[in-house]
Amino acid sequence: MSHDPIQPTRDDRFTFGLWTVGNPGRDPFGAATRAVQDPCRIVQKLSECGAWGVNLHDEDLIPFGSSAAKRDGIVADFKKALDDHGMVVPMATTNLFSQPIFKDGAFTANDPKVRAFALQKTMTAIELGVELGASTYVFWGGREGTETDACRDPQEATRRFRHAIDYLCEFVKDRGYDLRFALEAKPNEPRGDIYLATTGHMLAFIATLKNEEMVGVNPEVAHESMAGLSMTHNVAQAMEAGKLFHIDLNGQRIGRYDQDLRFGSEDLKQAFLLVRLLEGTAGTTPYTGPLHFDAHAYRTEDDAGVWDFARGCMRTYKLLAERARGFDADSEVRDIIAAMTDAAIDPLLGAPYSAASAEALRAMPIDIDTIAKRGLRYERLDQLMIENLMGAR
Amino acid sequence: MSHDPIQPTRDDRFTFGLWTVGNPGRDPFGAATRAVQDPCRIVQKLSECGAWGVNLHDEDLIPFGSSAAKRDGIVADFKKALDDHGMVVPMATTNLFSQPIFKDGAFTANDPKVRAFALQKTMTAIELGVELGASTYVFWGGREGTETDACRDPQEATRRFRHAIDYLCEFVKDRGYDLRFALEAKPNEPRGDIYLATTGHMLAFIATLKNEEMVGVNPEVAHESMAGLSMTHNVAQAMEAGKLFHIDLNGQRIGRYDQDLRFGSEDLKQAFLLVRLLEGTAGTTPYTGPLHFDAHAYRTEDDAGVWDFARGCMRTYKLLAERARGFDADSEVRDIIAAMTDAAIDPLLGAPYSAASAEALRAMPIDIDTIAKRGLRYERLDQLMIENLMGAR
Amino acid sequence: MSHDPIQPTRDDRFTFGLWTVGNPGRDPFGAATRAVQDPCRIVQKLSECGAWGVNLHDEDLIPFGSSAAKRDGIVADFKKALDDHGMVVPMATTNLFSQPIFKDGAFTANDPKVRAFALQKTMTAIELGVELGASTYVFWGGREGTETDACRDPQEATRRFRHAIDYLCEFVKDRGYDLRFALEAKPNEPRGDIYLATTGHMLAFIATLKNEEMVGVNPEVAHESMAGLSMTHNVAQAMEAGKLFHIDLNGQRIGRYDQDLRFGSEDLKQAFLLVRLLEGTAGTTPYTGPLHFDAHAYRTEDDAGVWDFARGCMRTYKLLAERARGFDADSEVRDIIAAMTDAAIDPLLGAPYSAASAEALRAMPIDIDTIAKRGLRYERLDQLMIENLMGAR
Amino acid sequence: MSHDPIQPTRDDRFTFGLWTVGNPGRDPFGAATRAVQDPCRIVQKLSECGAWGVNLHDEDLIPFGSSAAKRDGIVADFKKALDDHGMVVPMATTNLFSQPIFKDGAFTANDPKVRAFALQKTMTAIELGVELGASTYVFWGGREGTETDACRDPQEATRRFRHAIDYLCEFVKDRGYDLRFALEAKPNEPRGDIYLATTGHMLAFIATLKNEEMVGVNPEVAHESMAGLSMTHNVAQAMEAGKLFHIDLNGQRIGRYDQDLRFGSEDLKQAFLLVRLLEGTAGTTPYTGPLHFDAHAYRTEDDAGVWDFARGCMRTYKLLAERARGFDADSEVRDIIAAMTDAAIDPLLGAPYSAASAEALRAMPIDIDTIAKRGLRYERLDQLMIENLMGAR
Repeated sequence: MSHDPIQPTRDDRFTFGLWTVGNPGRDPFGAATRAVQDPCRIVQKLSECGAWGVNLHDEDLIPFGSSAAKRDGIVADFKKALDDHGMVVPMATTNLFSQPIFKDGAFTANDPKVRAFALQKTMTAIELGVELGASTYVFWGGREGTETDACRDPQEATRRFRHAIDYLCEFVKDRGYDLRFALEAKPNEPRGDIYLATTGHMLAFIATLKNEEMVGVNPEVAHESMAGLSMTHNVAQAMEAGKLFHIDLNGQRIGRYDQDLRFGSEDLKQAFLLVRLLEGTAGTTPYTGPLHFDAHAYRTEDDAGVWDFARGCMRTYKLLAERARGFDADSEVRDIIAAMTDAAIDPLLGAPYSAASAEALRAMPIDIDTIAKRGLRYERLDQLMIENLMGAR
Repeated sequence: MSHDPIQPTRDDRFTFGLWTVGNPGRDPFGAATRAVQDPCRIVQKLSECGAWGVNLHDEDLIPFGSSAAKRDGIVADFKKALDDHGMVVPMATTNLFSQPIFKDGAFTANDPKVRAFALQKTMTAIELGVELGASTYVFWGGREGTETDACRDPQEATRRFRHAIDYLCEFVKDRGYDLRFALEAKPNEPRGDIYLATTGHMLAFIATLKNEEMVGVNPEVAHESMAGLSMTHNVAQAMEAGKLFHIDLNGQRIGRYDQDLRFGSEDLKQAFLLVRLLEGTAGTTPYTGPLHFDAHAYRTEDDAGVWDFARGCMRTYKLLAERARGFDADSEVRDIIAAMTDAAIDPLLGAPYSAASAEALRAMPIDIDTIAKRGLRYERLDQLMIENLMGAR
Repeated sequence: MSHDPIQPTRDDRFTFGLWTVGNPGRDPFGAATRAVQDPCRIVQKLSECGAWGVNLHDEDLIPFGSSAAKRDGIVADFKKALDDHGMVVPMATTNLFSQPIFKDGAFTANDPKVRAFALQKTMTAIELGVELGASTYVFWGGREGTETDACRDPQEATRRFRHAIDYLCEFVKDRGYDLRFALEAKPNEPRGDIYLATTGHMLAFIATLKNEEMVGVNPEVAHESMAGLSMTHNVAQAMEAGKLFHIDLNGQRIGRYDQDLRFGSEDLKQAFLLVRLLEGTAGTTPYTGPLHFDAHAYRTEDDAGVWDFARGCMRTYKLLAERARGFDADSEVRDIIAAMTDAAIDPLLGAPYSAASAEALRAMPIDIDTIAKRGLRYERLDQLMIENLMGAR
Repeated sequence: MSHDPIQPTRDDRFTFGLWTVGNPGRDPFGAATRAVQDPCRIVQKLSECGAWGVNLHDEDLIPFGSSAAKRDGIVADFKKALDDHGMVVPMATTNLFSQPIFKDGAFTANDPKVRAFALQKTMTAIELGVELGASTYVFWGGREGTETDACRDPQEATRRFRHAIDYLCEFVKDRGYDLRFALEAKPNEPRGDIYLATTGHMLAFIATLKNEEMVGVNPEVAHESMAGLSMTHNVAQAMEAGKLFHIDLNGQRIGRYDQDLRFGSEDLKQAFLLVRLLEGTAGTTPYTGPLHFDAHAYRTEDDAGVWDFARGCMRTYKLLAERARGFDADSEVRDIIAAMTDAAIDPLLGAPYSAASAEALRAMPIDIDTIAKRGLRYERLDQLMIENLMGAR
């Protein structure tokens, strides 16, 4: 057995979805290149790779339309596999996008029967998730959007989505489940435009909920990156608000279809900054929830390639964490980013507003020319980040 | 005088910034192509074009570093021009981006002296705005971001920005000003990544403020469109939350530098959908605030071209409004988007959650195959939109 | 029968692919929402809608792996349908992307067996196309790219692709077929990056072929637009080089997955400019080849919606052509874009280079300040385009 | 003196433009943050940093409108500085974008006087470049585009641009200069759309020139990346065609304004792949021309930061070259990408086309199922690339 420091272990809290390593490689232009896998085998293989848990949509485990008996048999087998291989299910979610009935949306569809069916399906899926031990329940509204916006008032769509989340919060509370919701945004695909396009929009929406304390976000690297937004800034806003309930790690190029690439395989600097933030290596409060990889292997891979892919996600995360620790321990870095203070101004900025303190603040002389001319050494800082990242410091 | 129905009038509430029609055509690769204009002449020309108001940054009117006497003289002349030409100043804002002292940010800069200076400058600029009659005060944090994210904890940036807005709310309340704040998001440029990248992020941030009722948003077409997001969805989320305090209209292609093109000159369908929402032609509550054009003329234009540009913004808005009214009066459109109802389900969806109603809802039979197969006629709907937009219905 | 001037007729040379109106609405996140259609019915329905022709991939008509007898039966039925409904097959192409064997590419794959199979399949498909009367053969290399560029030397990929096209040109010449090739570029999807990403790259590649006179391009709106490039500029470069052999019309937002929306449903101004160029309404040489719609109906549509979609593509094209004619007949437009001449300079710019003429040119005085200050009236020009487009002139 | 293996030396052929390290930090939203630098000091500082050469636009050295005497004095001083510091000028170019006269384009402008002036200016600037020893002359047509495409026929724009390049080739030949042209593409900015948007479009255009052997390309990382295209693919196509005459190295995020960031500071994997291709570490023919950094320091930097930036560009290039050599020496990598051969097929693919060989090729049995199922180990390959890049192998 190796002492490789980037070998994943259960303590790393790494999770994968059944749909990720189980992805058969179908895409819009071509057929599957790999066989569909048995969920119990996925549990075993993930465990062997060093993962801690496995997540799922209802339909990843229970085929749509299964009888209660079939469902119970599958669940029993799956729980046994979890036990056998020491794996947990920290998160579950509902597939509200594959079935054609959701072609106009699920919680936001124009037809009340569709909205009712989406609630039915979600309540049933929540029961499944809870039975498997999930403590986080994710909502990704892949069909909650439009191709032609004239089809519905987008304000009404917000109200419908709010109704659904409020309703399901009440359901969870009524049942006494120990479960929090995490909302996952995506700007587009499969729909032309999806409502509540980013983590920022989701955080705003959450603030309007009846039970907002139960609801946080599940930012995904690929989803924020598609729109060219900074994943780090999105995660930071969620963390600062106490709302980072879950996270989806993967890789993505800006302005592309949803690639869901191996974590760290694109935009390595952003991946480094994200891991640095999650791990708190700069002295900030770390994230301690599951580290979920919502990614899948290239279509060129066979089964062995899938597990190469899974190991790669975890290895790169650990390597980035190691590099982030090195970066934040680098004395030249610490010197550049040392906190700036001002004995006269800090108390004025620190105190609550008062007419008197505002007058004092306005009276403070500021030598703007000197400040404007001072170099901030950010090129050197960024170069130190690159050299640390590349293992050259 | 013409009876042209798309001729702008004061009743249309159209406004322009001094910096928009006054833009001399400088860009990162070339010098100005037009002379700098006198603010009083801008007021006169805008009035002649049919605009209702003019907006400004402090430095658009008062050169940075002006003496109090010079400032007062400029203000007196400007107020006279407003009176002479029947124009108002509905909105004012602070330039916190041009001066080199803001190169690391203004309210989020690492140096407390810069943060103090940004507060000083803003309090002074608020006084100017109030003196000119402004009832909305906009914050656009063009420098509140980074090129290299290692330079500061992005959570701390949020806290610094919150401090500034909370502080300035208190200042306004303390002074008894009748003034609301409108926060304007932009994903990038001039900085590599700007904090609070979209209207969604701003709405989420506002929910964390001490005086959140005083603070709304100022979405800008170009800013949401740069990231490929739907301006209409962003505005709708703001309207639904009662937070659309102001709006910046212009044109922009996705994934480009900030173009600030003539309103309606890009993505005509999105412009149509936006005007339809603002005007409420589909029966929703209209927006009744100022319609501000934050755009500027091509660099190829001389003075006459600038006023062609200004007239074009307003004419296209009115033409789109007319087309939107036609679309929503079209019986084929009304038929396609007529509200769907279900006598059994609607009461269950309309009532508050209870264990009993949830059980009733779960017991409702839904004929998913029939619903899935039903065509929704959205291609026809979108084609009707195009044909209405093109004046062919 | 209506006299609607935008009603499509056979003379308009409109074509659709079997795969377009036959698209069942499957996407990466959901199952098909419409039944697979019989090709003969598609021929009938397209004819009823006013189309002139139908195009196809080999596998659109002949299921992969069909016996010769089955193939011949299908072809006979299809030809009868074409005859019955007065339809032609102007273009055919090979599906080199759906089968898993192409997961690493077809003509550029690393395995020589895959490259050989791609040639086999294409020769057979060319025979099919010729049998159906096609005079244009399209190559879209959807799998000719990479997710990880380390897998092959991209220069070698170019050489492999060139070998295939050179080889197939010889095959066509050897057979005496009256067939030209049209290469279709796409920057990404289904692969992470596709070689020869744009029409420009294809034109450059064609210039290196042995039989370059046989080979032109097939630009597609969606493909150039994904990368934010101007479709009009790409088509113009191809037309100026005599290389516009075919065209794929549809709609697409920048920076998205391949949407293949109804023609004209996105970026109406670019669609207008494209139709204006193709129709030559500004006095340039028109394009006279097939006008092919490579688009498909929203997933929300049933069969009736598919034909609404098809009619919409054609109606919008005709409406844009009408608007373009109006624009170019508008005297104010003609005045702004009238050719500029200079009696002294034009002869120097028109003559071939000589040392003497170069000296004469360098000696010409140019009044740069006056020229720099002159306004070009492009804002007015663009506004006239918008008002014409919207039917308001 | 350090033995740091990534310390730049003259042998590395690194060059910078006067306009890069001399950039004063002005942007569209703010004033300069650094003083304008004397060109002779730039030469000295670059030499101290380990650069080999310096490149320039005419106006970087000679202010627009200078007298002949002033020009000669500046040139004499500059040549002395080059000699004193052992620096060369491998490349020169014309500024055809800053002066307002070029607001409608230079070689493609509608006014023949502007086109004549652009030729005048370029001939003079070529003389300057030759006098300073340049062997490559770059053309970047920043103003050769449009905001509103109705202003000119884009085919005519191509013809005008061709006339200019053909004319200037003749000028160079007539003078007997040892000078090649390198055309640099950019998709947009400062214009809304620029003609000949990518390196591919330029290569296609070059194939239509009278003296095409004199003309190659100058691809720029930022320009291809803005449109989300693969810089590596663009450079490979140019290298395969023998047309990579020069290269512009920098950093850029997709879908942004032109950032011109420090080389390697964005998209480290693409930077790695590019350096690997340029250095030929995988066994391909290396590029041996100048390695030019067309980048500038963040606006936050003072003079010291500018030289940190310059050193960073070069250090990262050398570090990437070292990592690329390690990657290509890695036996696991070599195993995955080893050339695939087939004794039966290779001769058929290697021979020229004949009817007989085509029949033989078509008769070859291909076991498509076996090939389709085989995993290609590309996830492992990509992971090896990441781990090599991060210095962890």
